[in-house]
Order: sequence, then structure tokens, then C-alpha cells
Amino acid sequence: MNAISQQKSSDRTNVAIIGMGTVGAGVARLLIDHGDRTARHAGKTIWLSKAVVRDLKKPRGIDLPDGVLTDSIDDVLNDPEIDVIIQLMGGLSPAREVMLRAMEAGKDIVTANKALLAEHGGELFTRARQLGRSIAFEAAVAGGIPIIANISQCLSANQIESLEGILNGTSNFIVSQMDEKGAGYDETVKRAQDLGYAEADPSMDVDGTDAAQKLAILSHLAFGATVDWRDIPRKGIDGLDPADLVYARELGYRIKLLATARLVDGELELSVAPTLIPIGTPMAEVRDAYNAIRVVGDAVGPVFYHGLGAGQMPTASAVVADVIDTAVGRTPITFETLEYFSSERPPRTAQRDVDTLRGRYYMRLRVANDPGTLASIAGVLSSHSISIASVIQHEPKSKDESSSDNTVPLVIMTHEASEGAASRATTDIEALPAISGTVVRMPVRE
Amino acid sequence: MNAISQQKSSDRTNVAIIGMGTVGAGVARLLIDHGDRTARHAGKTIWLSKAVVRDLKKPRGIDLPDGVLTDSIDDVLNDPEIDVIIQLMGGLSPAREVMLRAMEAGKDIVTANKALLAEHGGELFTRARQLGRSIAFEAAVAGGIPIIANISQCLSANQIESLEGILNGTSNFIVSQMDEKGAGYDETVKRAQDLGYAEADPSMDVDGTDAAQKLAILSHLAFGATVDWRDIPRKGIDGLDPADLVYARELGYRIKLLATARLVDGELELSVAPTLIPIGTPMAEVRDAYNAIRVVGDAVGPVFYHGLGAGQMPTASAVVADVIDTAVGRTPITFETLEYFSSERPPRTAQRDVDTLRGRYYMRLRVANDPGTLASIAGVLSSHSISIASVIQHEPKSKDESSSDNTVPLVIMTHEASEGAASRATTDIEALPAISGTVVRMPVRE
Repeated sequence: MNAISQQKSSDRTNVAIIGMGTVGAGVARLLIDHGDRTARHAGKTIWLSKAVVRDLKKPRGIDLPDGVLTDSIDDVLNDPEIDVIIQLMGGLSPAREVMLRAMEAGKDIVTANKALLAEHGGELFTRARQLGRSIAFEAAVAGGIPIIANISQCLSANQIESLEGILNGTSNFIVSQMDEKGAGYDETVKRAQDLGYAEADPSMDVDGTDAAQKLAILSHLAFGATVDWRDIPRKGIDGLDPADLVYARELGYRIKLLATARLVDGELELSVAPTLIPIGTPMAEVRDAYNAIRVVGDAVGPVFYHGLGAGQMPTASAVVADVIDTAVGRTPITFETLEYFSSERPPRTAQRDVDTLRGRYYMRLRVANDPGTLASIAGVLSSHSISIASVIQHEPKSKDESSSDNTVPLVIMTHEASEGAASRATTDIEALPAISGTVVRMPVRE
Repeated sequence: MNAISQQKSSDRTNVAIIGMGTVGAGVARLLIDHGDRTARHAGKTIWLSKAVVRDLKKPRGIDLPDGVLTDSIDDVLNDPEIDVIIQLMGGLSPAREVMLRAMEAGKDIVTANKALLAEHGGELFTRARQLGRSIAFEAAVAGGIPIIANISQCLSANQIESLEGILNGTSNFIVSQMDEKGAGYDETVKRAQDLGYAEADPSMDVDGTDAAQKLAILSHLAFGATVDWRDIPRKGIDGLDPADLVYARELGYRIKLLATARLVDGELELSVAPTLIPIGTPMAEVRDAYNAIRVVGDAVGPVFYHGLGAGQMPTASAVVADVIDTAVGRTPITFETLEYFSSERPPRTAQRDVDTLRGRYYMRLRVANDPGTLASIAGVLSSHSISIASVIQHEPKSKDESSSDNTVPLVIMTHEASEGAASRATTDIEALPAISGTVVRMPVRE
């Protein structure tokens, strides 16, 4: 394989794209229309040799030179002139098999497939090291924010103490639109779909899966933790009630789907959850489909990044930067040095028991409009050593604010408590006779 | 020189610090106390061999191993075992000569000396290329924000369309404190000095020199422009009147010292000026000594960075990241590829004539409290094709709002106009008999 690599002309790097969806077409556009730009940054030509598609006849909104388009993956993998594979197939299979075959054929990889890395990162990175190949994956997390390079290189002098972010643009679009327009969840999802911000089945986005997969990858880079994304306590924004956005605002907060990784006593707290964030802080003001990430390093202090999380050209921007880094040799160095997902490097950080996470909580519940109700709830909280910071219970202003069953909404902000205590208190409160339905509970950031 | 490089043991990179001020001590602390961390990111040991100081007896708040401290630069430059020089001397001379000698002695350079690069970048980078050496300078601009690496590598697929930022932490601290506390300029400078946010002579910070030097460096990286920082139109925050902060807030803006580089018709608009920025946008909410930079790329869209601009450990974080990048070989690749300040690469972008810059303007003036005054001012603006967007003229509420000479403050927001027209209109307005004193004029961002 190395003989193949070394034969290649050094003034040109040949690349092939596998998977010409939206992002693939954007990558092709940058490589073809802006060859001068990539050449300037790479010190040599980056040449798009092939683009593999399933259907040669499908229109893609881009003119490719004759001979570039092919429907044969083998053509590309067997071509010794191709140095780098831009792997843009979605899903796990055959994306995994194609990536393995490409590396066995001596090619370096650039990919945007976050789910594939979250599921099979260990296997793929180990195999890459065995074969002397590299995998670049800036586009897999927060496309428009170069967070992979920033954690792996720019902040390398730091012990990262915490990392939190809005990592799912679809969820953030839905929550911001609900907040700004006072609209309901279902109609906002429909609107997001119409505008192209949500897929026909948005469940992986809105249930927190996507954010948890990204957080697992970032936690590995930032803390050396090896985390299965399924082990990250995770709540989504699906079914968010607009009432909570209104109460949060009254209390001085916005609700955002926040992914958090935080070192506490040498262990890693991980969570994905709709979270109350103080209005006026940069994270609370992240709108629409933007992503944002705040990293705190022990030397650099807090660094905040804000950019588009997805979309054709932001993702293509990350892919092409990776292609340049691979072509000039930076990625191979970083890849070899950092030994991502190496089984020979034991995890540096273990995940903390979810019950021990500490923070403040927002709780909303419907209670009987009777004397004694608040006392009974306060009693339960107190029995779990949770103290109340503030309470909102408005007098019913009109018919539709109080329900036919004589219940009213009650909102409680607690002082700091453990997740375990808050969870047990919630169960106990829900068992009180004065409570109607379930308790909505969300963590609160300072 | 190359023979020297190649003799060096590959599992260890030896570095020496020249200049052990605050930042130098921070760098030494990271290298000595956190060798495991740097080794993990470099894949080998980064070893602090020497630290050159003028006075061996001065306390530095850090315990260096025996034999590290020296007062002889020659000791370090003549030591063939030392691979990288961390050049932390301030000023232009002898910093320039030391850097040249170090490169001639076969050493790569990491530096935080922004003024040196702004003045002698061309000479130093050309000499480095001749000698096959590299210069890393992340710490020279916005220490806690890795903007050099982000522009040079992470956003390399983009044509950068604009770059604007709060690049001077001292100025931002002073302006935010004046805004939040309603305090005057002089007392706030004093407070900033007491807290260590401003130097005894803060003129280079508050007059915009520091921001212009940083903008010149960033403009070179982002736009391939070769700009003498003296050619950047530049106003500082020195003498800022708290009244302008109050009027700006009433209009929905905050005032920040903003450095701007923007491509317009293929030419580069450059400026440093106190600027009105809409409240609620991330840039307006940058407080205290923080820096922030917003880059717009044609593919990635807007990316916003926020972090500490200076200080011991944020700057040391940038320096040590550069040391690691140099030790593993990433910096030499980037340095060779991008050919910064190369005389063989003509500038890609020319600076635009300042008169053609376009934007909205804020103007505050003292006018005679007579009928006809506003008409005469509007007439002057109109004669320069500038239309008025809004006007604030409050009725005098108390004695101290109207002055003894029967003048009142008048604030005008214009629609878009050219800098040339705005400047000529200002001169003409100041010549009107109804105007007392000079006109305060600042650009306004949307």
C-alpha cells in the first residue's frame, strides 16, 4: 500500500467522492469551481477524479467533467491513482464496509458520517492505524464549527474542564421558532420540514440521539472517554410544551437542547436535555438552525464557538478543509499522534453515575387549587433535602388558564440538588393526591 | 542546519523560552507541570531546556529545575540540542535580531510578539523560508481564540468575505465598564489599571494601534492582503463620552471598538473604530476583557468566536499549542504551504479607498436651541446625499441637560452613506453657526 502512495505525483492529490447527495454536490462544487483556492491552501492541486453515485441519471445541480461520474465503487477503490476517499454515504452499512475496503486499498478517508463513527469508531480507527491510513471527520460534528480541530490541536495545552453545546440544528430551529412565535410543537415541526430544517422522520434529531452521538465523539476527543452514546442520559425536545418556554422566560431563561460533558472529581458528567439557560448569555441567544459550543480549558478559560451546524455548504466547507489537511499531511500527523479510540490507550476518564449529577431544576406540574397543596409538595422536596428557590403560581386570569378539574399550573425552581434526589422527589410528588398528571422537570444552568 | 535538526532525538523536542515575563512563566508552568498533557498531544516529550532572563535573581512565581534559568541568549542559540525557541521578548529590537539569529542557528520559532510581526513580518517570514524554518504566532492575536489556525486551516475551503472583531481586551474592558456602571472615561481607565487590565501607559491599546496591528495580520491571512497597519483608518476609544453610550442604548445599540475587514467588489475595506452594534447580537454582548471575532466565509457562512484576548494562561495556551504543532510537524507544513508575506506571491487583495466605505452613521452634536437649527443640519446632510433615519432631541429636563449657552444635544442616525460624504458633511455641519464644538461620529452596524 505504501508503495502505491509513494508512486503518486506529489504536486497533485486525487480524490473521489462516494455518495453524491446534498453535501457531496457541495464538495464537488468547491473542488471544481474553486480549484485555485484549494491549491493555494494545499500548495498543490486537489483533483476530483471520480464521484460514485447509485443512479447516474439523477440530476445533481452540478456539472461534472466527463468521466467523473461512475456507479462503480470498485472503479474507485481499485484505482491506484486515487489518494483520498471522501466518504459521504449515510447509514452504517455498507458505509462501514466501504470505508474498510478503501483503507485496505491504501486510501485516506474524509467522512461526515457521525453515526458510523459513534457506532464503529473503535474498529475503524484501529484498522486505519494498522494500515497506516488516516480518517478525518471534522464534518461529523457541527459542520460549520471546526470543533474537532479546535479540541485536537488548538486547545491541546489544556485540560478541558467542560464542554457544552447546542449540537442539533433541527431541535434548535424548532425550539427557537416555538419561543419566538409562541407556536405549538407539532405545527413548528411541520414548518421546519417545509423549510428543509427537519427530515420527514425527524425522530433522531428531536429525541436527542443525534446530539448524544456527537457528544460521545467530542467527549472522546476532549476527555479521552470511551462512551457508548446510548449510555448518555438523554431527553429530547419532542413534545415540548410552549407553556414551559413562557414560564422559563418569565424566570429569565430560555430553553435549549443542551449537550453537556463536565469533569467532576475526575469523572465525566454527561447529559443531553432541554435545559434552562439564562437570557443574555451567548448560549441562550443561539437561534434557528445554528449550533454553538462552549469549551472551558484550565489554561485558556472559556472559548465559545457559534456557526451553522449543518447544510450543504457549511458541511462541504468542513469536508474540503479535511481534504486539504489530509493532502498536505497534517491529518496523518494528528491521527497518528492522538491515537483516537485506541484499545492500547485506556480511557482517561470514566463516566459519572447519573444520580450524582448536581444542579438546579425547573419543575412544572398541575396541582389542585386547594390550600395545603404547596405545603405537601414542599414537604416532599424537603424530605429529599431539596430546597425551593422560587415559585410561580399565578391567579387564574381566565377560564382557559384553570382547567375544569379545578387544577392550576405551579412552577418551582429548586436550589442545587442531585439528579438522584430530584428524580426520586419527582416520583413522590407525582404520587401525591393533589397532583394531576406528570411533572415536567428540566435542569437549569447558571 | 538541517544536519543539526536531523541529529535530534525524535522522541523528544527541546525548547527554550527567551523572555520570562508573565506569559513566559505561564508557558513554563504548562511545560513543567503538565508534561503528560503535552506528551499526549505531541506523541513525545516536550522538554523545557532553558529559559533566558535578564535578571537571574528576579522572582517569577515558578520553580524551574536547576540549570534551566540562564541570562545568556548565546547559550541557547549555540546549543544544537534545542529545537524550538519560544520568543517572548517584547518590542522590536533586539527581538527581531534574536529571532533572526535563532533561525540562522536552525531553530523553529514560536512567538507572541504581534508588534514585531506587524512591523517586520515580511523580512522574518522570508528569512524563515530561506532557512527552512517555521514561525508560529497563534498567541500574537487574541490569545484565547485560536483564530490563526482557524483561518489558515479550518476555514481553508472558503473565500472569506468579512472578518470583524473586538481585538483589544483593554479597550473592551473600559467600554463595557463605562456602559455598565455609567462611569467616565478617566476614572474607568484608572480602575482598569488598578485591576491589571490596562498598562501604566495604555495609549497603544486605547488609541486603536493594537487592534490595527492585529487586523493587519489577520487581513494578510484571510485575504492575502499586505497591509501596513498605519494605513488602516483608525480611531480609538480614548476620550469616549459616556453620553454616547447612553444615546446608543436608547437607540438599541452598544458601542464597541470594532476592527473590520470586508471584501467589497474585490477590494478590502479596513477600519478600526468605536462602532454601534445592535443589542442582542453576539458581538454587542462581549463584555470585560473578552475578545470576539466573526468570520464570514462563502461556504461556511458566519462563524463567531469568543474568548479571553490576553492574560497569562490564555496566551500560554496558544503558545504551547504552537509548540506542539511545531514539534509534531504540522506548523512546518502550514508555514511552507501558505507562504505568508512572500514577496513572490503578490497580494491577492488591495485596500479600498477609505472614502468609498459605506455604512450608516451615528452623529452627536450640540446645537443652538433655536428654530431652524435642525433644518440647517438636515440641509447640509441632504446636500451630501445623506438621509436621516432618526433623530433624538429631548426637551431639556433640568438645568444640567441644557448648557448655559442655550445649546442642547442632538443625535442623528443616518441611512447608508459613504465615509467620504459623511466626513465632508461633518466638516460642513461643524461650520454652521448654530453648532457648538465638534461632531461625534461613529459607524453603525446592522
